Amino acid sequence: MIIKQEHSICALATPIGVAGIAVIRVSGKDTFSIVDTLFRSSTSVSSSDTHRVLVGKWMYDGVFVDEVTVSVFRSPKSYTGEDVCEIGCHGGHLVSRSILDSLLAAGCRTAEPGEFTRRAFVNGKIDLTKAESIADIIHNNSPRSISVSKKQYNQAFRKEVSVIRAALIKLAGLLELGMDFSEEGIEFVSFNEIQEQLHSVLKFTTELLNTKESARILRNGITVSLYGRPNAGKSSILNALVQKERAIVSNVAGTTRDYIEDSILVEGVKVTIVDTAGIRISADDIENKGVQNAKQQVLESDIVCLVHDSSDSEASLRDMASEVQLVLEPNQVLLIVLSKSDLIEEANSIIVNGIDSTNVVHVSTEDETGVRQLVSWISDFIERNTSSETSVLLNDRIIGELSSVRDILSELTISDSTIDPEFLSIDIRQCIKHLNYITGDEWSEDILDTVFSNFCIGK
Amino acid sequence: MIIKQEHSICALATPIGVAGIAVIRVSGKDTFSIVDTLFRSSTSVSSSDTHRVLVGKWMYDGVFVDEVTVSVFRSPKSYTGEDVCEIGCHGGHLVSRSILDSLLAAGCRTAEPGEFTRRAFVNGKIDLTKAESIADIIHNNSPRSISVSKKQYNQAFRKEVSVIRAALIKLAGLLELGMDFSEEGIEFVSFNEIQEQLHSVLKFTTELLNTKESARILRNGITVSLYGRPNAGKSSILNALVQKERAIVSNVAGTTRDYIEDSILVEGVKVTIVDTAGIRISADDIENKGVQNAKQQVLESDIVCLVHDSSDSEASLRDMASEVQLVLEPNQVLLIVLSKSDLIEEANSIIVNGIDSTNVVHVSTEDETGVRQLVSWISDFIERNTSSETSVLLNDRIIGELSSVRDILSELTISDSTIDPEFLSIDIRQCIKHLNYITGDEWSEDILDTVFSNFCIGK
Repeated sequence: MIIKQEHSICALATPIGVAGIAVIRVSGKDTFSIVDTLFRSSTSVSSSDTHRVLVGKWMYDGVFVDEVTVSVFRSPKSYTGEDVCEIGCHGGHLVSRSILDSLLAAGCRTAEPGEFTRRAFVNGKIDLTKAESIADIIHNNSPRSISVSKKQYNQAFRKEVSVIRAALIKLAGLLELGMDFSEEGIEFVSFNEIQEQLHSVLKFTTELLNTKESARILRNGITVSLYGRPNAGKSSILNALVQKERAIVSNVAGTTRDYIEDSILVEGVKVTIVDTAGIRISADDIENKGVQNAKQQVLESDIVCLVHDSSDSEASLRDMASEVQLVLEPNQVLLIVLSKSDLIEEANSIIVNGIDSTNVVHVSTEDETGVRQLVSWISDFIERNTSSETSVLLNDRIIGELSSVRDILSELTISDSTIDPEFLSIDIRQCIKHLNYITGDEWSEDILDTVFSNFCIGK
Repeated sequence: MIIKQEHSICALATPIGVAGIAVIRVSGKDTFSIVDTLFRSSTSVSSSDTHRVLVGKWMYDGVFVDEVTVSVFRSPKSYTGEDVCEIGCHGGHLVSRSILDSLLAAGCRTAEPGEFTRRAFVNGKIDLTKAESIADIIHNNSPRSISVSKKQYNQAFRKEVSVIRAALIKLAGLLELGMDFSEEGIEFVSFNEIQEQLHSVLKFTTELLNTKESARILRNGITVSLYGRPNAGKSSILNALVQKERAIVSNVAGTTRDYIEDSILVEGVKVTIVDTAGIRISADDIENKGVQNAKQQVLESDIVCLVHDSSDSEASLRDMASEVQLVLEPNQVLLIVLSKSDLIEEANSIIVNGIDSTNVVHVSTEDETGVRQLVSWISDFIERNTSSETSVLLNDRIIGELSSVRDILSELTISDSTIDPEFLSIDIRQCIKHLNYITGDEWSEDILDTVFSNFCIGK
């Protein structure tokens, strides 16, 4: 059943900027009659077949605005499930603004972020896991994250959730049936069967939750900070890394926060390399602020590369290493990078307390071996900490629902047979509810607000 | 006749950025067969009717890329006149990149800037005046310039050129006929008729060329610099102007070069207001650099507002005014803005040599009258110097051709009747050639390169 929303909505669906064309999307029950008041063509939109492109003139208050194409999609065969028009006009700011103004004047209202997709959900065209995959596909820049999002888009995750939900529904049904016949002493499902089912769902849930860190890395990438004394060779390493890999994620807005930060793709994952200010005590306030920032960067990195000039004292390296080790969290890794190794006769095996020799890399900008080794080290880190096998790119909302399921089931699976079937059934129904929230088989406005607030306008 | 270009071309037709959808355009004789190797749908593109939207999956090397719409336009009923597909995919960087890569691998090549429109021209779908109006519509942000570009888009200018060209062709024909019958002494067109025609074309050409300055202003807007001593009130005036008008052209890339510059729309024209550094002699090198920049800004402004604190000495105002007047070009205007007029008892009529009293405005940020008067002054300036009556937004290329026509005709119209009809006919044919270059009825690759180099990729 298609639920007709009260207002027809419109928005620019393409980015703001100078390009050949812009596309404006209109959706809602009055779409065709509104567009027909503004669009002159040999065929009216109202009388057009679905999935046709009409060519004509867009008029606003009798004034010619642009020659446009209007693609017609009739309910329910459209993105939102409602009547939809997609208006293709010349690019640039003013033409699309003028078309939007004419639509607003004719009775449309401006779409909220994600409102087209929200209507698609409300009208049963897509579930929430698919809706969330669309936002990820649009916003993420790592090929690995997109590959997971595509599986999610193609409903792989929905199917997995449906399977375990079906098992829980059956279990709850049998328990409730048993309650009806409890006087007769008939048991429809044994304690062992119940425990087996619950353990299997708990395992699924726990394994999924374990991909949380992987999803974070696939979505946001990892940060590698280059930390060390002035002139240790940090900037040369940044340059070598960036030039070597080429695949700089450069023309994506917001990639580079300032000149000492750049990104490369390693194993299809965005790796942001931050070159920090050299660490030394200085009388210069501005320089000291830089040192503070450097220390902050270390706290926020996945990998801290402590860059040390091979010809400098080992004692100084040990001092800095232990200083860094003090503040690192368990999920952060310290890597010792011995730079300018071409300037010393042979690469010493420097021993630093608590640092495995595999976490030491010799780099010389004269010779590419070291930089390659560094990239391969980063690549191994990504390999260890990510998985593209999963069918979902976890987000906070899904993590919340899955955690609730896991907590309830952990409680139930340590219980013994004395648990009241009625309480058991209530808990299982609660788990089913959380699974329904994930896919949107049950939903509230709050849930939809959470999902669609991350969308851009026009989607 | 549609000329089939050798290669099918593809490009992103929407801006790079995060938004709901992106559109990729493909054009050329192999478009349908190439798209069919990559697109899975219930109907193939090759077997689809024209102007239909197909929905299906985009695949690259057997891997799912995205769910897309493909709009099919069959030659000659397309933008370029060739077979065209427009692929609508999810927004963001990676999906469209992947679709473009798959098209390149399947035999397309990346379109040059403006190549779709260039093909449309070569295939006789549009003339050059329309092509140039499209670039102007896309790139310009002033409602007034768009309104002229739209007339040009709707062929008003082409029609005007056609009328005078037809007159010249007829004239040349009659002259040449006369030459054939010169022995018989038959005259097909009188000296007076010739002069009348040539004068009328010269008038048309000269009047058009006179809109050159108007076109510059409509296209680029005007620049108003605020110049004066420190604390004269320049920044308050900038703020008052910007806040008052609201219509800040702010989300257009490249609008604001730095923090002391902002834009407003006055009479539908972009007005860039530049707040310059206060003028004083300083020991500080950085401040002196600022003063140098301020003086440079004055040289590049259409209107120089010399901002003077009403309570300061009139002598100092006169000094600065004459300093500015020395460097101003005839098309630049000096406006005296007396600020903080609320702090003095009554607005003195300050007399500055060579400055008309209508070029003096009293402004107080306490009272909006002054700022309104300033805006109205700018508005009058725009009114005087622009015209939206014209059917073309002149550009360097058209100015060049029109100037050639004007130069030839000026020469001819001062000649007497002794001029040889053969030379006269050659000169008129030369004028016709220049008019043909304007519309593209005659063209060379050089002319097309000039026209389409200003286009963006994907148009």
